[in-house]
Amino acid sequence: MQAEIIAVGTELLLGQIANTNAQIISNALREIGIDVYFHTCVGDNQKRLMEVLETALKRSDIIVLTGGLGPTKDDLTKETVALYLNLPLIVDDKSLKNIKRFFAERGRPFTENNFKQALIPDGAVAIENKIGTAPGILLNINGKIIILLPGPPQEMELMLKDAVIPYLSKTCSSTIFSKVLKFYGIGESALEEKLEDLISQQTNPTIAPLAKAGEVTIRLTAKAENRTAAKNIIKPIEDEIIKRVGDFLYGYDDDSVEEIVAGLLSKFNKTIALAESCTGGLMAHKLTNIPGISQFFERGIVSYSNRSKEELLNVNPETIRSYGAVSEETAKEMARGIRISSGTDIGISITGIAGPSGGSIEKPVGLVYIGYSDSNTCYAEKHIFSGRRRDIKERSVNSAFHLLRKMLQRLGD
Amino acid sequence: MQAEIIAVGTELLLGQIANTNAQIISNALREIGIDVYFHTCVGDNQKRLMEVLETALKRSDIIVLTGGLGPTKDDLTKETVALYLNLPLIVDDKSLKNIKRFFAERGRPFTENNFKQALIPDGAVAIENKIGTAPGILLNINGKIIILLPGPPQEMELMLKDAVIPYLSKTCSSTIFSKVLKFYGIGESALEEKLEDLISQQTNPTIAPLAKAGEVTIRLTAKAENRTAAKNIIKPIEDEIIKRVGDFLYGYDDDSVEEIVAGLLSKFNKTIALAESCTGGLMAHKLTNIPGISQFFERGIVSYSNRSKEELLNVNPETIRSYGAVSEETAKEMARGIRISSGTDIGISITGIAGPSGGSIEKPVGLVYIGYSDSNTCYAEKHIFSGRRRDIKERSVNSAFHLLRKMLQRLGD
Repeated sequence: MQAEIIAVGTELLLGQIANTNAQIISNALREIGIDVYFHTCVGDNQKRLMEVLETALKRSDIIVLTGGLGPTKDDLTKETVALYLNLPLIVDDKSLKNIKRFFAERGRPFTENNFKQALIPDGAVAIENKIGTAPGILLNINGKIIILLPGPPQEMELMLKDAVIPYLSKTCSSTIFSKVLKFYGIGESALEEKLEDLISQQTNPTIAPLAKAGEVTIRLTAKAENRTAAKNIIKPIEDEIIKRVGDFLYGYDDDSVEEIVAGLLSKFNKTIALAESCTGGLMAHKLTNIPGISQFFERGIVSYSNRSKEELLNVNPETIRSYGAVSEETAKEMARGIRISSGTDIGISITGIAGPSGGSIEKPVGLVYIGYSDSNTCYAEKHIFSGRRRDIKERSVNSAFHLLRKMLQRLGD
Repeated sequence: MQAEIIAVGTELLLGQIANTNAQIISNALREIGIDVYFHTCVGDNQKRLMEVLETALKRSDIIVLTGGLGPTKDDLTKETVALYLNLPLIVDDKSLKNIKRFFAERGRPFTENNFKQALIPDGAVAIENKIGTAPGILLNINGKIIILLPGPPQEMELMLKDAVIPYLSKTCSSTIFSKVLKFYGIGESALEEKLEDLISQQTNPTIAPLAKAGEVTIRLTAKAENRTAAKNIIKPIEDEIIKRVGDFLYGYDDDSVEEIVAGLLSKFNKTIALAESCTGGLMAHKLTNIPGISQFFERGIVSYSNRSKEELLNVNPETIRSYGAVSEETAKEMARGIRISSGTDIGISITGIAGPSGGSIEKPVGLVYIGYSDSNTCYAEKHIFSGRRRDIKERSVNSAFHLLRKMLQRLGD
């Protein structure tokens, strides 16, 4: 099966946003073994969309369109597809009910132009929009599968996962299966050197290293008749990679370090509190993205001022005067202070200079100390990160999670 | 002049990267008044690239291709364009010298496959690559302009700025100028209804509404001989829009609500502290993304447990027992508590149920109270947000910033 993706929206052609929908959909289709051969962006223009649709229907079996399903006159994807296929638009009662409920729940009036969102081409199946108004649309006609999804990435992604991929999975017989190994603490080139012979011989599975901020991943991709056969192709190569660089391996696939940390907190039944300075709450934010974390995460303090470090974390004013707020000593006192005041098993602290100003020769922008405290030990790690303010915040939090992961993993040894 | 962009590279179709090049090029072309009507992505495949090229040459005056100019066998953009136009490839001496120097400077051997990068179609002009090896290529043939740029965004962007835009600027006499108006507190359809007559009459400027999470924007785009003339075309329409829905306008172009809030805190010299529960530090994180905010942001508390609400925010245990942690009363006490304990002018609190579990019939997932306290007033707003855990966090924080913005703006009235 061969697919293509058409994104509809003038905002894409104006360069207001990047076409991340195409990336997300391509990724999802690849995982179930469907080849994507083309992406197209076209504006909110019926004539040009019609041309694009015609070309797509000639060369592809599956066409996924995103965008242009909203209530305004600009939104004409559905209308154009229906016109091209000569299908009347009919009201989908369930969608209409959903849309009316959406407005009612928010105490907002259901304006007449929203009615249009409940129309679908005759013969199509509506895909429920759980977080917005416009339903998705699934059409299987003349041997072609045509799928219409809303433009907002959150709505699109939810429908893709819940409805489109399950539907398409049934239609394809060979499988591509990928497994991603995630490494921390080793650079891309060092990793590649250790695996050079494996990478150069790669055919099935393929071995693709990729460097991201603060980590390196290796994607192993196998093509086989089914998932089990693909997994069996990957297994020996994965084992060999782990034999060589397994010390740096921290997770697989979509594992995030914060999810791994949350799992370890749960496994060892440990509670935690955070004291953040330069990262300004980012670590607490990432940790609290994980459902159920309230059982283990007691509190976070964003101690941006020295006064708050002293009052809330019991940092000795003398320590700040002698060593500075960004120092190993302050980081340790912050970690110990938050652990004791919150009554948790573990305290983590981050203090540093995120920039762009505030740096000096001795303490440059990017200097960050990460503190760790439990009932047995208390210490701090020094890092120097590069990048902009946001990069430094991200990298600091990433390192803090990895420090925490390593300390928790030792509990299991 | 009408342009389209073709990105060549299988990595795009696999979903490994997003097509940010198309966004960057579109933006640059828009600024010099060139309309972009299509983006296409195609893999490293000569037959399919040939088809895409043929379609593009039929419908567009300017075709910008990116990617596929490197030294490997996969890289075949230049070869395909030359083949399609029936032009021989010839050595560009200056490019060859550049490439050899590039390797020499890095102490790396000039391997034979790099020779291919110095070839350009006969009649084309090479664009120097100042930071890499493959030159760009500019072809003006049969009334069409065909531009080939490397795939790596940094190399592409430098050539675009230094060579392509100056060249194309000469070929087009008009400018497109856009202004974005940002609204909060009104839905897309309600906004459009109030502006329906303006939108339906739109020609120059065009009026394009767009809904994003928690806000609606309107892009006004004018075409004129120069920037000033374009601005003059936009002005009366902008004034009319503001007359009708100006109450909901909060910013322009790339303004973010947190930047506006930071500007207002600075303008009125007000300090602030945050008490977050369900948003887990996200508001503090967003606020601390802004350089220099430490002057106004004193501290944040992520009071995830009831104990931390009582200890750090002085919330009365009786209030939590009677009304619950997610209630108007608790939100107000949290806001007052953080303001008084931190000694700031303003305290903001957020307490709610981010889900996926923890909801009930009376207090569903998505129920969020946002509290505000200053020396004169203390109150809380009730919201019900939809979406996943992260969406609810995002929307809560967005609303909290808008509440804060409105309260700060009143100080100026």
